Amino acid sequence: LKIFSLNSNHELAKEIADEVGVELGKSSVKRFSDGEIQINIEESIRGCDVFVIQSTSQPVNENLMELLIMVDALKRASAKTITIVMPYYGYARQDRKARAREPITAKLVANLLETAGATRVITLDLHAPQIQGFFDILIDHLMGVPILAEYFQEKGLKNEDIVIVSPDHGGVTRARKLAERLKAPIAIIDKRRPKPNVAEVMNIVGNIDGKVAILIDDIIDTAGTITLAANALVENGAKEVFACCTHPVLSGPAIERIENSNIKELVVLNTIALSEEKMIGKIKQLSVAQLISEAI
Amino acid sequence: LKIFSLNSNHELAKEIADEVGVELGKSSVKRFSDGEIQINIEESIRGCDVFVIQSTSQPVNENLMELLIMVDALKRASAKTITIVMPYYGYARQDRKARAREPITAKLVANLLETAGATRVITLDLHAPQIQGFFDILIDHLMGVPILAEYFQEKGLKNEDIVIVSPDHGGVTRARKLAERLKAPIAIIDKRRPKPNVAEVMNIVGNIDGKVAILIDDIIDTAGTITLAANALVENGAKEVFACCTHPVLSGPAIERIENSNIKELVVLNTIALSEEKMIGKIKQLSVAQLISEAI
Ligand SMILES: Nc1ncnc2c1ncn2[C@@H]1O[C@H](COP(=O)(O)O)[C@@H](O)[C@H]1O
Ligand SMILES: Nc1ncnc2c1ncn2[C@@H]1O[C@H](COP(=O)(O)O)[C@@H](O)[C@H]1O
Repeated sequence: LKIFSLNSNHELAKEIADEVGVELGKSSVKRFSDGEIQINIEESIRGCDVFVIQSTSQPVNENLMELLIMVDALKRASAKTITIVMPYYGYARQDRKARAREPITAKLVANLLETAGATRVITLDLHAPQIQGFFDILIDHLMGVPILAEYFQEKGLKNEDIVIVSPDHGGVTRARKLAERLKAPIAIIDKRRPKPNVAEVMNIVGNIDGKVAILIDDIIDTAGTITLAANALVENGAKEVFACCTHPVLSGPAIERIENSNIKELVVLNTIALSEEKMIGKIKQLSVAQLISEAI
Repeated sequence: LKIFSLNSNHELAKEIADEVGVELGKSSVKRFSDGEIQINIEESIRGCDVFVIQSTSQPVNENLMELLIMVDALKRASAKTITIVMPYYGYARQDRKARAREPITAKLVANLLETAGATRVITLDLHAPQIQGFFDILIDHLMGVPILAEYFQEKGLKNEDIVIVSPDHGGVTRARKLAERLKAPIAIIDKRRPKPNVAEVMNIVGNIDGKVAILIDDIIDTAGTITLAANALVENGAKEVFACCTHPVLSGPAIERIENSNIKELVVLNTIALSEEKMIGKIKQLSVAQLISEAI
């Protein structure tokens, strides 16, 4: 069994290798002068079960190509099996034709990974669980909710004081899973546009009055939805607001919005590594290393 | 018949469409906040023969992913055939395992293009013509030499004054093709390292004394080889030195090296678009639009 890290999640890869009890495999990933990726595997892997840790987070296209080239190299070096550990699956939101003549990039990515030579994929909280069906190879789909639930349990909040809130109607299933573990009720924010070109109204379905609200989403990207939701919750009587998600994409104005919002703490997983600037006090990052190592 | 342009070669795409006598197809290629590519095709292409113009030049991974996603969108929009026009084929230099446990990225790219749904590829001067065999779909392999030869012919140089020079032994076949068209002899620069850790010696095979030397290569990347060759030619008695290539990659120190070299003029094709900074006086860029339009 060999575990290789690429460039997206070095720390997580190190943690996973420690949990499994092996050294990280030796490989080099460099760039030629013109930006082409140059990969070399620096130890024999013939006949081995090989795991490659790489999220297709920002820069998504670079990270994806690194991964595909690495898988090609492993295949040609006679690996027995090649498992892609992709804590964050980029392009997962392009999972259907929402408009005519759009690509389905999440399916394209699945095909590219198979074409390169992957024999199994391990990932967490796909934006839509249907993406599992885009693969003909084995796929393990892990859940971040237990890690988040454990963290909130350890805070010592009383079950009856908490309400789990989905920031939109699409996330109710996810909110229910966290609510079951915390034995708490749920609420839903139902955004509606009363008339075309009129601002959306945040309608809260469920009782949040005087409660500690915990917002949950799978991905927090520009943080528009989650911060507007937090503010609506406070305006409507929530005592305080926590937020959590599996994948902290946090692009564009996200950090500024979170800083300026009513969110007391944002709890995220390390499926995506956070750069220094994103490591603000309000953000708490929990590790998926143990969860992943159990699947390996 | 529809022709679409992506982001690598807008001007060339426009020229090709003009030569063929059609308008460029309407599509939008944007980025989401997190850097993911968002493509939408804005006109019906059902049942059409579609051509997509995109070189996988710098930024190679971005340009390749744009292309793959576009092909996916075209396929799902029921194009009858999808021809990729890739004037410059990125990763072509990774075409074999030069060392153990290396990838063969040129083959991976071929597989990715087929997986996305391409039915035919048109390209120019592959670094190794064997790359044609990496495809199971149709591939048209065009040659830049006639365009370069015509340009030098129009300069009115006398055939007997010219010598065509290959900057290394790998490029002799290419030099011969240009030499045949210009009815000129060839010379070869044979770099040798007399002992390990001693600088290479530029040994010139062939007569260049008092002649106008025309160096030819397929790709000029960091321009180390070509500028050292030019200087060696002048030192060994060449009257003046021209250089030419199909693909002006021109990365890193290339422009500075060319400016400071003995090269009088560098003639390149527009398989790769040149940014403003690269449009220096010494560089002359010729168009492949007509050549490509004849293959369409
Ligand atoms: N990287 C991205 N950033 C923002 N929006 C995206 C991204 N990828 C896809 N989308 C959009 O998000 C929507 C899918 O999200 P959802 O409706 O929550 O499943 C689609 O309308 C996509 O156009
Ligand atoms: N993008 C690149 N930039 C510079 N060298 C490269 C690049 N891609 C591959 N190579 C190297 O170029 C050599 C192949 O060139 P050649 O021997 O001329 O066919 C191989 O040894 C590669 O390692």
